[in-house]
Amino acid sequence: MKKNILLGHGSGGKLSHDLINNLFVRYFDNPTLNSQTDSALLKIKGENIAFTTDSYVVDPIFFPGGNIGKLAIAGTVNDLSVAGATPLYLSSSFIIEEGFPIDDLEEIVKTMASEAKKAGVKIVTGDTKVVDKGKCDKVFINTTGIGQLEEKHKNISSGKNIKSGDKIIINGTIADHGMAILSARNELKITSDIQSDCACLNKMIKKVLDVSDKVKFMRDATRGGVATVLSELVDKKNYGINIDESSVNVNENVKGICEMLGFDPMYVANEGKVVIVAGSEDADKIIKTLQKDEFGKNSSIIGEITENHSGKGWITTEIGGKRIIDMLSGEQLPRIC
Amino acid sequence: MKKNILLGHGSGGKLSHDLINNLFVRYFDNPTLNSQTDSALLKIKGENIAFTTDSYVVDPIFFPGGNIGKLAIAGTVNDLSVAGATPLYLSSSFIIEEGFPIDDLEEIVKTMASEAKKAGVKIVTGDTKVVDKGKCDKVFINTTGIGQLEEKHKNISSGKNIKSGDKIIINGTIADHGMAILSARNELKITSDIQSDCACLNKMIKKVLDVSDKVKFMRDATRGGVATVLSELVDKKNYGINIDESSVNVNENVKGICEMLGFDPMYVANEGKVVIVAGSEDADKIIKTLQKDEFGKNSSIIGEITENHSGKGWITTEIGGKRIIDMLSGEQLPRIC
Repeated sequence: MKKNILLGHGSGGKLSHDLINNLFVRYFDNPTLNSQTDSALLKIKGENIAFTTDSYVVDPIFFPGGNIGKLAIAGTVNDLSVAGATPLYLSSSFIIEEGFPIDDLEEIVKTMASEAKKAGVKIVTGDTKVVDKGKCDKVFINTTGIGQLEEKHKNISSGKNIKSGDKIIINGTIADHGMAILSARNELKITSDIQSDCACLNKMIKKVLDVSDKVKFMRDATRGGVATVLSELVDKKNYGINIDESSVNVNENVKGICEMLGFDPMYVANEGKVVIVAGSEDADKIIKTLQKDEFGKNSSIIGEITENHSGKGWITTEIGGKRIIDMLSGEQLPRIC
Repeated sequence: MKKNILLGHGSGGKLSHDLINNLFVRYFDNPTLNSQTDSALLKIKGENIAFTTDSYVVDPIFFPGGNIGKLAIAGTVNDLSVAGATPLYLSSSFIIEEGFPIDDLEEIVKTMASEAKKAGVKIVTGDTKVVDKGKCDKVFINTTGIGQLEEKHKNISSGKNIKSGDKIIINGTIADHGMAILSARNELKITSDIQSDCACLNKMIKKVLDVSDKVKFMRDATRGGVATVLSELVDKKNYGINIDESSVNVNENVKGICEMLGFDPMYVANEGKVVIVAGSEDADKIIKTLQKDEFGKNSSIIGEITENHSGKGWITTEIGGKRIIDMLSGEQLPRIC
């Protein structure tokens, strides 16, 4: 008989303990978590740390290329990595709907354990809440991460060393995640073979930082897509951005669905793409490094930082026109991550 | 006209930015948060840190003595404090139901800012997700915290130095939070003047650690109540616990509702109570220190660690009987925190 989550699994009593031991401790298995104190006790060398949080509410929770658990690890690992930090420790907190199948929860937890292992991070503390049926949608997961930051990387997240002439790089095709989620939603009756690009990028990013000390800025292009990263990057700055649309790689099937439904791939979410701004002298070296990595095969230089039109991003379209890169107004796709 | 949360507030685009700036940055205001990088960059002295996470799904979100925001700060601050750590930084992540009144969200955020300020912690990073109407219940909040841990306090969370003869102390009346929440739920048609005990205990706990180096263990008695803390404490240990029920303070109105509805106060949730195990030589000193604090006025010694009946907790009831302290099985009150 299939077992489902009961309200008692969130009570803090016997059922909670059984769930924690049979599922979370079993799969996330490490001495810090296993000690089951309310706070994980950690050691971190160096006084600079990066700290980031995200709650994941993606719908559907299982999608081509991943599930909510993979997303919860990759999203938070990537947020630390783009700050130039080495991701070390994650917390994971579950809000589960009463009646949710324990088999599905196990599948998600297994994926999280395997992704965390691949990325070299440890899930050291957690929490489980159960809400009555109809009061949440299956399962929501928060992961919060701690990374160690070397002094020399501390300006990467603000991008304060960016100057005109710097190149803008992306590690592959865009809009895959958003269109995979959209296709996976039954209501649209679309069938496609689009896979989410959801992946932990920390090892690839480390290779880039190892070959170049000219990385000025990195940001993962999730909600709001590449356009939102670029528009935030130039906001109130004394430089602008020129993007060459023909250099931005988009898979054919993704392009097709975007055209059919009226989405601009530049605004569609990714979960395995990082926008890198780097000194032009190192751009080729970085591209070569990225292209050797499994998550960077289709990397390209998509544009550059300009002295002109400060505070604005411009894109030269494939047919030769020019349009401004604005911040997304309103909602494009809800519950994409 | 009253404004409500729209799906677009979770898009990562313009509406998200407006919400972040007009609400979160405005109230949580500190340079780290204000820089709005995806990861907060922090400095922590010493290599030992404590790290803890909790998602708050309390129903109702406003209750006598607090709201979900106060709970989200106090709960996580207390988890760090009972590990013997000094709480420093919090993340806050919101999952909000489409249509939720922005005025209510502002009230919650204001409370969080004020509680964080009182406790001396900074909210340095955050996340906002919006789900379609009916897919969550108003608002859920995750807070994850980092504290600094001095070497000399690192055995407090495991309780490894506990020995028989140590005294068990609690800082006041129990079961207030659980019964306040229950009374606040409309379905029971109970009116009472019970207030939740929800409070940040870090300053009180610091005073205790300053006067005594004989604190062997601390744990906040939330879900599952004092009984669950005690039953976890003795589980698989070579010592037992004797509790004297007549020394456990319970407010008269709380006792009344518990009796009426068949709840045992020992299993009802608290949000401002810490169970302290300390060497008997320091017990009186600790009680005096607690009683001088606003959150410790009704502190008492409720029992002691025993050589006998190892692995078991026993309670001597007010009428002179004895019963075992078991772990809560099943659900007592869902969505209490």
